[in-house]
Amino acid sequence: MSKKSIKSALTVMQGIGQPDQINMELVGKYKQRKKRNLNVQDFIDGIQSGNRTILSKSITLIESSLPKDQEMAQEIIAECLKRNQEISIQHPASSIRIGITGVPGVGKSTFIEALGTYLTRSGHKLAVLAVDPSSARSKGSILGDKTRMVDLSVDPAAFIRPSPSAGTLGGVARKTHETIILCETAGFDVIFVETIGVGQSETAVHSMVDFFLLLMLSGAGDELQGIKRGIIEMADAIIINKADGDNVGKAKSTRIEYKNALHLFPPSDSGWSPVTDICSALTRDGIERIWEIVIKHHNLLLNNGYFLRKRMEQNLQILENCIEEGLRNNFFSRKDIAGELSAVRLEISNGTASPYAAARKLLESYLRKL
Amino acid sequence: MSKKSIKSALTVMQGIGQPDQINMELVGKYKQRKKRNLNVQDFIDGIQSGNRTILSKSITLIESSLPKDQEMAQEIIAECLKRNQEISIQHPASSIRIGITGVPGVGKSTFIEALGTYLTRSGHKLAVLAVDPSSARSKGSILGDKTRMVDLSVDPAAFIRPSPSAGTLGGVARKTHETIILCETAGFDVIFVETIGVGQSETAVHSMVDFFLLLMLSGAGDELQGIKRGIIEMADAIIINKADGDNVGKAKSTRIEYKNALHLFPPSDSGWSPVTDICSALTRDGIERIWEIVIKHHNLLLNNGYFLRKRMEQNLQILENCIEEGLRNNFFSRKDIAGELSAVRLEISNGTASPYAAARKLLESYLRKL
Repeated sequence: MSKKSIKSALTVMQGIGQPDQINMELVGKYKQRKKRNLNVQDFIDGIQSGNRTILSKSITLIESSLPKDQEMAQEIIAECLKRNQEISIQHPASSIRIGITGVPGVGKSTFIEALGTYLTRSGHKLAVLAVDPSSARSKGSILGDKTRMVDLSVDPAAFIRPSPSAGTLGGVARKTHETIILCETAGFDVIFVETIGVGQSETAVHSMVDFFLLLMLSGAGDELQGIKRGIIEMADAIIINKADGDNVGKAKSTRIEYKNALHLFPPSDSGWSPVTDICSALTRDGIERIWEIVIKHHNLLLNNGYFLRKRMEQNLQILENCIEEGLRNNFFSRKDIAGELSAVRLEISNGTASPYAAARKLLESYLRKL
Repeated sequence: MSKKSIKSALTVMQGIGQPDQINMELVGKYKQRKKRNLNVQDFIDGIQSGNRTILSKSITLIESSLPKDQEMAQEIIAECLKRNQEISIQHPASSIRIGITGVPGVGKSTFIEALGTYLTRSGHKLAVLAVDPSSARSKGSILGDKTRMVDLSVDPAAFIRPSPSAGTLGGVARKTHETIILCETAGFDVIFVETIGVGQSETAVHSMVDFFLLLMLSGAGDELQGIKRGIIEMADAIIINKADGDNVGKAKSTRIEYKNALHLFPPSDSGWSPVTDICSALTRDGIERIWEIVIKHHNLLLNNGYFLRKRMEQNLQILENCIEEGLRNNFFSRKDIAGELSAVRLEISNGTASPYAAARKLLESYLRKL
């Protein structure tokens, strides 16, 4: 490790780390070893002591595509899961994971800044992550620029990590979910997972959080064009942001529209009925009330046993989804199937083949060829 | 074939078949041969001439699990697809497929009877099918009992076929979809596909119809408990049934609630905005208006080119879904994977394994063992 990078690592740790997060022994180790020489135990000790440089480096391992890094990352995650599990026997809900979504322009960054600083001032430790597989392409990256969250980015009780910048949605979602586990081991008790409400990412985020918050603007209708179908039905709370100045009345009536609309949906399995509210992330009006909603939901689900059940079910669902994705990827990437597949697609497009019969034939070929 | 069954076949054909549907040459063939001896060509000719006994028998082949029957069924379907395709070059939309759903008690049978007899009187030929994988288990079968539709069941221009009574959702959906193709070859120009709005079947039905109609009751809220999330967003029309007597006012205000709520959803890709209306299947008030809605939708989609594009996309989607289902079934039914899989599920339930890492390991085992 170069002198400069040691210095910058120390600056980071000393500058924004809280006293209890700095483990001088580890810093010493760190100085003596090159990055590559940190072993799994060093990473785990570092994460558990709240050392954010080591936390960052372990997330980089998760995001790496090198088999060696992946192997190390998986060992670290397995150990972190074990430690989180030991803690959760005593404290069944040592963290709250909150998904936050809404179209660009709704004020997500300002909202995260407002709710986030409210939380850190109340003694919470907050990690802000993102699932945004599009950022690599569009460069309209969310969280790509920490300057969007001026206060949080220098807040010693907050840890901001942008979305992995490349990969499929499945890959990005996996990395974010595994990062949550590490952040929880590092003592972060509130996790925000940000996403843009326009793509497929919301379903992925919904499958890894305890609470799903949808930010909206007033003047329902037009601004919804960008919101994907199905997102409203996933929301535990719909919050109308920018309820300030002349906009308060409009925000209130939009809220009522959503409130009425939500009545038409069946309640979720957890017994929670989605809540609507207004706030201004800019003036911070209503921010405290939104946290109260989250806590009310949290307590309900803890008391009715749904909290841990939901996390378990989410993980089992992720297992199935990943297996299915893997099987699908293997099938659709096979060069020896590609020819038959495109011929069949053409026949189906022409209306001359039944998709059912075609699928059966393709599957038979595939399983024979494997 | 026994004397009795020939007689009953002839009775069926002569009794409810329209003159143009009776092909005396075929009847002669039919007399001379046992059922097993009808060949693919006999079936196709019979179907195309509108012979409903032969149509029924070919649907029975589709529903059979015997490999020999399946093989024959697939040949028949392939040939029917070809003929439908030839017709569709001249008449791009020679049939309209309509999915009809709603919780038990909403009056689906009465509605189908009312709209159905309205259509046959207007000169249409109507096939009524169903997707109901639960009927085998619950015996709460839809369409299991033709007496629910007194007029339609003796209407020579209507063909009613209950849901296949056994099998997975995927299997039942396949059979229903393939039955649609045969019915279209037999000259039915309107196809109803009925389902109960409580399970997963709606997505399957939605993937094989041109228009998706959701029947509701007035007094929004309580009666929605049974409607699955996501169904409202699939609807092209939400119709409040039982708008008769004292109930008309309530139905009207329920309609307005849905109308307002639907404004909050983005428009569908086809450019169609979901419509709300009221009707009484009992008094038949509003039934004609509902058909006008279907026709308006049909014309819009024909004019903007979305009608055929949608059918093509549905078929390509079915191809993908079937491949995925087949891959999944193969994986989850492997005995040499089962042990590892349940061990992994236990670890995940305990919170001691990452579902992502576990999925990768399982997939590696599977692909190695194949």
